[in-house]
Amino acid sequence: MSYDEGNIFARILRGELPAHKVYETGFVLAFMDVMPRSTGHVLVIPKAKARNIFDIGENDLSHVASAVRVIACAAKEAFGADGMSIIQSNESAGGQVVFHMHVHVIPRWEGIELKPHTGGMERSEILAANASKIRQVLSQL
Amino acid sequence: MSYDEGNIFARILRGELPAHKVYETGFVLAFMDVMPRSTGHVLVIPKAKARNIFDIGENDLSHVASAVRVIACAAKEAFGADGMSIIQSNESAGGQVVFHMHVHVIPRWEGIELKPHTGGMERSEILAANASKIRQVLSQL
Repeated sequence: MSYDEGNIFARILRGELPAHKVYETGFVLAFMDVMPRSTGHVLVIPKAKARNIFDIGENDLSHVASAVRVIACAAKEAFGADGMSIIQSNESAGGQVVFHMHVHVIPRWEGIELKPHTGGMERSEILAANASKIRQVLSQL
Repeated sequence: MSYDEGNIFARILRGELPAHKVYETGFVLAFMDVMPRSTGHVLVIPKAKARNIFDIGENDLSHVASAVRVIACAAKEAFGADGMSIIQSNESAGGQVVFHMHVHVIPRWEGIELKPHTGGMERSEILAANASKIRQVLSQL
């Protein structure tokens, strides 16, 4: 499968679409999912043009994994989460909707189920506030 | 949270329990999930004593991610999968049941939902045959 330059995460990376960013390095970007499955749901993506796990390079994947760990720890603290679900979907059969490699980092609490991924768009001010909470924790590391 | 030396993946790593192994390096082990959510469901674990994403070391995580990529590509070919779901659960609120870090690599097909994780134990001969199919692909890399 080829890489689609027009996918929305590519557009975010090119600055053509806004995002509530929480973390960025030379290799990865992390930002709030606009259709969160729980409070504080973050997406971690490589800056490299990878469609998914099947074509991402070794070094880029390593940077993504490292960022997932950083975000999982920060989001746990920022939101007082009890746990974290990490999900990475590949191809439409695997639940992938946007065809730029991404990892979902989703805070969890005891007794609370995940919302469906087809839930509504979260309000921008809520996403901004949640992004700020994660950045606050990250700034203290 | 501390590491529980008695968890079943620690026991597999110590050779106290059997597993249908598909891949092993100095840092990771991959083997068939005995309660598969689809045909070819594999678990990738670090050999290091990590409870989950919150305490795994950087280098061990990198090795796990690399192995996940290898297994995802091999399982896709071995089973003719259309996609792959990769899930990593942290703490019981996040769906973690065995408290040794592990990543689920689950082949997917169009129109087929995942079975619940509380499904039954797969027969050993089926798991052995599926492990063999993955090892066969890996041996040709």
